[in-house]
Amino acid sequence: MQPRIAICADDTAEAGEGAPHRANEPSGDALRQALAAAVTGAGGRLVEPVDAQGMVWLSARGVSALAAVLDTHPGISWVQLPWAGVENLASAGVLNRPVTFTCAKGAFAGQVAEHALALTLATLRNLVHQARTPTWHSLDPRSLHGARVTILGGGGIATELLALLAPFGCRVTVVRRRAEELPGASRTLPVARLHDALPHTDVLVLALALTPDTRTIIGERELDALPSHAVVVNVARGAHLHTEALLQALKNDTIGGAALDVTDPEPLPDGHPLWADPRVLITSHCADSADYVVDRLSRRVASNVRRLSEGRELEGVVEPGEGY
Amino acid sequence: MQPRIAICADDTAEAGEGAPHRANEPSGDALRQALAAAVTGAGGRLVEPVDAQGMVWLSARGVSALAAVLDTHPGISWVQLPWAGVENLASAGVLNRPVTFTCAKGAFAGQVAEHALALTLATLRNLVHQARTPTWHSLDPRSLHGARVTILGGGGIATELLALLAPFGCRVTVVRRRAEELPGASRTLPVARLHDALPHTDVLVLALALTPDTRTIIGERELDALPSHAVVVNVARGAHLHTEALLQALKNDTIGGAALDVTDPEPLPDGHPLWADPRVLITSHCADSADYVVDRLSRRVASNVRRLSEGRELEGVVEPGEGY
Repeated sequence: MQPRIAICADDTAEAGEGAPHRANEPSGDALRQALAAAVTGAGGRLVEPVDAQGMVWLSARGVSALAAVLDTHPGISWVQLPWAGVENLASAGVLNRPVTFTCAKGAFAGQVAEHALALTLATLRNLVHQARTPTWHSLDPRSLHGARVTILGGGGIATELLALLAPFGCRVTVVRRRAEELPGASRTLPVARLHDALPHTDVLVLALALTPDTRTIIGERELDALPSHAVVVNVARGAHLHTEALLQALKNDTIGGAALDVTDPEPLPDGHPLWADPRVLITSHCADSADYVVDRLSRRVASNVRRLSEGRELEGVVEPGEGY
Repeated sequence: MQPRIAICADDTAEAGEGAPHRANEPSGDALRQALAAAVTGAGGRLVEPVDAQGMVWLSARGVSALAAVLDTHPGISWVQLPWAGVENLASAGVLNRPVTFTCAKGAFAGQVAEHALALTLATLRNLVHQARTPTWHSLDPRSLHGARVTILGGGGIATELLALLAPFGCRVTVVRRRAEELPGASRTLPVARLHDALPHTDVLVLALALTPDTRTIIGERELDALPSHAVVVNVARGAHLHTEALLQALKNDTIGGAALDVTDPEPLPDGHPLWADPRVLITSHCADSADYVVDRLSRRVASNVRRLSEGRELEGVVEPGEGY
C-alpha cells in the first residue's frame, strides 16, 4: 500500500501562535521540497489534504490552523509535526484528537547537545565577558573536567550530552520522570528527588519536555538550592526556568551564570536585563543549523512513511497523556 | 640522598622579559608555598641557591635573571621551569648550558585542550556576535559533528583534544614533526605535508611548540590554502600565526573566523583591529585556571624531586636542540 501524504504549510515567513521562535527556521520552500522528496523517496504519494491519510505539518502556521485542517479532513489519521517539543498543541487540546501525532523528538538532539556543551564551556570560561571587553585582562576559567553536572530530562539530548561529557570525567546526575537508569549517567534520580541533586551541582542543564508539571521547574527555591558558583544552561524551553527568579539570583550573586538558548518570554525583548549581564549568554533559539533541521526532519518523515506502509510502529509518537 | 632544592622567585607581580603574558598568573606567594610543600613532600630539602643542586624557577623574573642565578651558582645542575613553552630561554641561548632543564610541557594540557574545544565551539556557533548583539536574531550555527579538524602539534594538548573530539566523530589530521602516528587521529602527517591537509580543514588548531621552524607557520599562503569557511584556533603561541595575514584574510572573507588565546603581539594592545571583529574571539592567555596551574606544577615538581632522588629520568626534559 502506497501511503497518501499531504504536506501542509503556507508561504508566509511569520511564525504562527503555536510555533517556537526558532531563529534558524529553514525557509518554507527548501523545507517543503526536501520533505516532499523524503515522502516520495520512502514510497509515499503526495496528495492534497482531502485525499490524505497522513500529513506532514510545517512550522509557519499555528495551532488553530492545524486544528482547522484536521476538522475539515477527517481522513487524516497521522500527523508528523516539525518540532521536538509540542507543548503548544498539548495545551490547546489538539493532541486529544483520534489521530496519531509524531514529532521530531530526538531528531535534533545531536546538535542541541553540542549547543549545550558550547554554552556550558562558554559560561564556565567567561566568554561573554571576554567578547564584550576589548582589552587584555585576567579571567580565571572554571573547568568542566570532573565537574558535577545535573541534567534535567532523560531523552535524546541527555543521551547525546552524556556522550560529549564522557571524556571530561564529569559526575553526571540525570533527573527524569521514568525510573530507568540512563546509560552513561553516574546516577539517575526521579523528579521528586531533584532537590537531592541541586546542592551538589556545578552545571545544571535543562533538557526536558515542557508540560504543566515541568513549567518553572527551576524557580526561586531551586536556584537557592544550587551552589552560588553553579551555572544554569537551558536548551529546552524558556518556561522551564522562572525568569524573575533567575534575575534575582544573579542580582544576589547566588548563581554563577546562565546560558539560555530559550527564554521566557521568547523572543527576549530588547532592553531586557538578561541581555546586559556579563554572566549571561543568550542565543536566539538557534542550537540547530537550518541544513541539519531539514536533514533530520527529512529522515524522520521518510522513516515514518516507510513504517506506515509496512504497518510498523511510528517513530517519535507523542503520548497525549504525557504531552511529549 | 635527599635532593637539595632552591625555589627562586621574587615578589614583584611584574612579568620579566622571558615570561609569557599569561593573565591568570598565580600569585607568587601561593605558588611558592605550594611548590615548597611539593619539594618537601617528595623528600627534598629546601635550601638557598648556594647550597642547591636543583632549582625551581618561578615566572615573575626574566631570562637574564635566570642566567645570572645559574652563573653565580654552578652547583645547580637541574632547573624546573614553570612554563609549558620555553621559547624565550631557547632564543636567549640559556638552554645551551650544561644543566638539565625541565619544563611544564604536557602538565597543563587537559585544560588547554578544554579551552581549545570551548573556543572552537564558540567560533562555529557565532558566540562572539551573539554576546555583542543584545537582540533576538538569527545566526545559523556550524556543527563540530563530523568536521575535519587539523591539529598542528602532536604533544599533550593534541592527545587531550583528540579525546574531547572523539564523541563528535571528527576526522582529525595531526600534523607533527615526528613520524609516529598519534593514537586516535584519523591520520598523522609530517610538517612537510601541512599543505596537503589545509584545503580539507574546517577547524585548524595550533597546539605546537614555538621554535625558529614554527614561527609564523601559519601565514598568508597557509590561510589562503584553507577553505573560506575554516576557523583557526590558537592555544599555543601568538607568533605561530602571522597576525597581519590573518587580518587580511578576515578583510577578504577568505577565512571563517579565529579564536586566539595567544596573540602576537601579546598582550594584544587596546584598539587592535582583532578586538573589534565579530568573527574573532580573543581570550587573554587564560586557558588554565590559577588553581590548576598550582596543582599541576606542584605535581610536576614533586615527581621530578622523587625521580632525582631515585636517579630516574626526569619528566618534561627540554631538548636544547629542539627548543622544547
